Amino acid sequence: MPTVTIHLLEGYDAETRQRLGRAVTNAVRSIIPAPPDAVTVMISEVAADNYMRGGSARSGAAALPDPADTVRAFLSAMERRDLKAARGFLGDGFEMMFPGDVRMTSLEELVDWAAPRYRFVTKRYDGFDSLPAPDAGAVVYCHGTLSGEWPDGTPFADIRFIDRFELRGGRLTRQQVWNDIAESRP
Amino acid sequence: MPTVTIHLLEGYDAETRQRLGRAVTNAVRSIIPAPPDAVTVMISEVAADNYMRGGSARSGAAALPDPADTVRAFLSAMERRDLKAARGFLGDGFEMMFPGDVRMTSLEELVDWAAPRYRFVTKRYDGFDSLPAPDAGAVVYCHGTLSGEWPDGTPFADIRFIDRFELRGGRLTRQQVWNDIAESRP
Amino acid sequence: MPTVTIHLLEGYDAETRQRLGRAVTNAVRSIIPAPPDAVTVMISEVAADNYMRGGSARSGAAALPDPADTVRAFLSAMERRDLKAARGFLGDGFEMMFPGDVRMTSLEELVDWAAPRYRFVTKRYDGFDSLPAPDAGAVVYCHGTLSGEWPDGTPFADIRFIDRFELRGGRLTRQQVWNDIAESRP
Amino acid sequence: MPTVTIHLLEGYDAETRQRLGRAVTNAVRSIIPAPPDAVTVMISEVAADNYMRGGSARSGAAALPDPADTVRAFLSAMERRDLKAARGFLGDGFEMMFPGDVRMTSLEELVDWAAPRYRFVTKRYDGFDSLPAPDAGAVVYCHGTLSGEWPDGTPFADIRFIDRFELRGGRLTRQQVWNDIAESRP
Amino acid sequence: MPTVTIHLLEGYDAETRQRLGRAVTNAVRSIIPAPPDAVTVMISEVAADNYMRGGSARSGAAALPDPADTVRAFLSAMERRDLKAARGFLGDGFEMMFPGDVRMTSLEELVDWAAPRYRFVTKRYDGFDSLPAPDAGAVVYCHGTLSGEWPDGTPFADIRFIDRFELRGGRLTRQQVWNDIAESRP
Amino acid sequence: MPTVTIHLLEGYDAETRQRLGRAVTNAVRSIIPAPPDAVTVMISEVAADNYMRGGSARSGAAALPDPADTVRAFLSAMERRDLKAARGFLGDGFEMMFPGDVRMTSLEELVDWAAPRYRFVTKRYDGFDSLPAPDAGAVVYCHGTLSGEWPDGTPFADIRFIDRFELRGGRLTRQQVWNDIAESRP
Repeated sequence: MPTVTIHLLEGYDAETRQRLGRAVTNAVRSIIPAPPDAVTVMISEVAADNYMRGGSARSGAAALPDPADTVRAFLSAMERRDLKAARGFLGDGFEMMFPGDVRMTSLEELVDWAAPRYRFVTKRYDGFDSLPAPDAGAVVYCHGTLSGEWPDGTPFADIRFIDRFELRGGRLTRQQVWNDIAESRP
Repeated sequence: MPTVTIHLLEGYDAETRQRLGRAVTNAVRSIIPAPPDAVTVMISEVAADNYMRGGSARSGAAALPDPADTVRAFLSAMERRDLKAARGFLGDGFEMMFPGDVRMTSLEELVDWAAPRYRFVTKRYDGFDSLPAPDAGAVVYCHGTLSGEWPDGTPFADIRFIDRFELRGGRLTRQQVWNDIAESRP
Repeated sequence: MPTVTIHLLEGYDAETRQRLGRAVTNAVRSIIPAPPDAVTVMISEVAADNYMRGGSARSGAAALPDPADTVRAFLSAMERRDLKAARGFLGDGFEMMFPGDVRMTSLEELVDWAAPRYRFVTKRYDGFDSLPAPDAGAVVYCHGTLSGEWPDGTPFADIRFIDRFELRGGRLTRQQVWNDIAESRP
Repeated sequence: MPTVTIHLLEGYDAETRQRLGRAVTNAVRSIIPAPPDAVTVMISEVAADNYMRGGSARSGAAALPDPADTVRAFLSAMERRDLKAARGFLGDGFEMMFPGDVRMTSLEELVDWAAPRYRFVTKRYDGFDSLPAPDAGAVVYCHGTLSGEWPDGTPFADIRFIDRFELRGGRLTRQQVWNDIAESRP
Repeated sequence: MPTVTIHLLEGYDAETRQRLGRAVTNAVRSIIPAPPDAVTVMISEVAADNYMRGGSARSGAAALPDPADTVRAFLSAMERRDLKAARGFLGDGFEMMFPGDVRMTSLEELVDWAAPRYRFVTKRYDGFDSLPAPDAGAVVYCHGTLSGEWPDGTPFADIRFIDRFELRGGRLTRQQVWNDIAESRP
Repeated sequence: MPTVTIHLLEGYDAETRQRLGRAVTNAVRSIIPAPPDAVTVMISEVAADNYMRGGSARSGAAALPDPADTVRAFLSAMERRDLKAARGFLGDGFEMMFPGDVRMTSLEELVDWAAPRYRFVTKRYDGFDSLPAPDAGAVVYCHGTLSGEWPDGTPFADIRFIDRFELRGGRLTRQQVWNDIAESRP
């Protein structure tokens, strides 16, 4: 069964409303696994002048970008070593945890730390998972495989990795990285 | 704003309804970051004889257990090497991927593979993240640190790990493991 | 799609609510032929003290019996010539139209009219069709075959008939009869 | 009371929505005979991109033509012996039952059968009744009087008839006819 | 909590809908003093062809002007002795009660009665209160202070007054006046 | 038309829900003067565990007493000079304005002020009007006539009065009094 009606202020574009509908459908079915056809979601858009709380009109919060898109763009900037672009995705207090429990807070630190470890690395993604966190935050996971070259120029490939990101207000506040480089390192 | 009304067949217990309400709240806020107080979820329970599809009464799907609880129980059974209990959480086609891209499908295989690697290992969790997946599935992540003893009895601790589980219909179908053991191994 | 919510005062029994749900489902699908599974009807029962019109509480109208049941009971009483019982189903201004455009208003007239036509007659029903009519009325059709004995005792069977009834407020106000007796009469 | 809300995908024209509203009103009042003013029907049109089942957008079934209109058009084509037009209304497996339990399956058969019975016949309708049948089918009744000419050219009039039609997917699959011709035939 | 949904025929302007939303918010909070943010009012406008009562379309009643505006305009016309304009606000059976239990029914009477009491009087308002009365009536109170000149030309000011008006169908049917003139009169 | 649905946490007694329904009906009709029968109010009670804001359960605010009842009880206590009881109805910052623009803040002051004016006074009420005010406040008016005895024992009667009260959170914060005593005083 569950039939879900969402009253929403007018002004969100169709893609946002579709993301909302799918997210709510998945949320419902993760708890009550009704057949897909039995889970109905309807969005009823309410004009701003037909909505009040406490007798006052309200405006809606802007939709958040898909946090997975933010993570993907950050990782892509890092791969091409465009630190300026990458830095644009970071929020206050950003910190990184890399294999061996290495903790860093600036992208330059990371570049220095990586230099003796590999010449370059490219990520192939097997999947992204995003979930909301308290206070309109989000957590994004991505996993897949790394390929690139060791410092001596030998190529490597198919090394498993997983990254965990925390976002707040659409910006990255933490990146945690695990991978099999230590298993594979020559 | 968003105000969400969920019409639900009667018969789900309060905890399930609360989980449903929180899951939907999170789903909404991950896309539209309204202040918490502005996201209202109401569940309207409909008696079975007040609900029809195509003119016929329907019964509701049984609620799924919290997938994080399932994962926690499975990991606990594995830690104490209670394979029988652990096996009870597995679904068809269960597979595991461990560091070094080791793929296994039975718990016995895993026990054999681990034997030369450590005497025992205990997990301390920093957090669980669960999210709904299509087709009433779920994904659960947990991360934290491992402690235990190397084969020679030397203790180890504070080794970072992360596990990713896929569930379908409440049962585990995939476990992916990453950790820093290779970084730390003596 | 159509999803129908009916707010109804508390107090109608489950059978009445199920009849209501089916009648509304049929009404919807006669105009919008959605697949059965896509037509959802939910009844929301409202306690009398939670409902007001013009600031005053209201009580609900008593449910009408299924008009096909009323017709069936009336025809059964007529077959066994229990005129008293049959009369109990009649409303004000009841009239009958029989083959040859014979119009009658009392059951006694009908019995007299039938006497020279057959000794007795029994109906076998192929089906009943009921539909709502304006002003809380209903129309019921039943068709099937007649068997019985001609005045001389010769049996007859398999003579097609159809009856059309109008009801108002649960009582019969008109009966129209067509059949093939004139085609078959010896 | 009953207050009925119908959530309907956008795209049905006003006439269809009005037919839907009246059909549902009649359905409700045939079971709960509330005063007309107390039966409220509201249609809430939902944009296609605000509606999902199982997380996927759906499109609505096209509205069915009023089955009584289909029957009327078929009978009109038959009266003027436009068999081509009439055949256009027939569905697979169409069959007819006429007085005397005559069964036919083609319109040509019917024309041959009627030839020795009357030169022509015209129907005057006293009313049409339509009701939904399972699987988006419909049943239509019409009754009234026949006028025309006997084979010898003598006119006749005011002969009662009733027709019962079954439709499936908007096409006629069965016609059952009863009338008083045998009562009136010279 | 309370979350209020008002289904309203399309056609009321935004100001009317806002007045409606505020009036309902105040009505709710006067009984259930939830924090303002917790009282949500949503207006859902229903197109005329999506609304039926008893199977018939209905049109909505024209919105009433704010009764306080009517009172203010009447009092302003009286202050400037524009009796023609003032009379335009009066309904059938209008009557006035002034200090000393003086009862009058025409504005001319009032002018005559006031003549020996003051040369002119001007009202400064501290506030208006309006409330609905049965049968779409309204009651309006206004209070504040009077200033003007006594018959001998001496000025006066700061004399407290209160007026109570009854309206029916947007027109004044009764005015009751209390003030401190007798306390202040020289 | 307007059809109002109020979703309300369970736990308010029937009288409170009826007051709420009437208050909302009046609020609606003061702006849109639909015929009483066309204004439907339905209250849908939501169990506490079926309601969340921001993912957390909430409890409902206690209903406020009818402010007219509070005023009546206060005035009755004052008539019988039960200052203790009367004081129980007063909120912080209570103030009074009496004829002649006399301002007082304690009930004792009032008693002293009244002593030389009348021996006692009794109120006969012609009516109470209550209306919601912003911030869960209320305004109550009552008017009618005073009777009692002048200081010399002479009786008086039929002296018009009106009182205006402001309440906040169910307690009196202001009383404004006007009457014709100065017109009538011997």
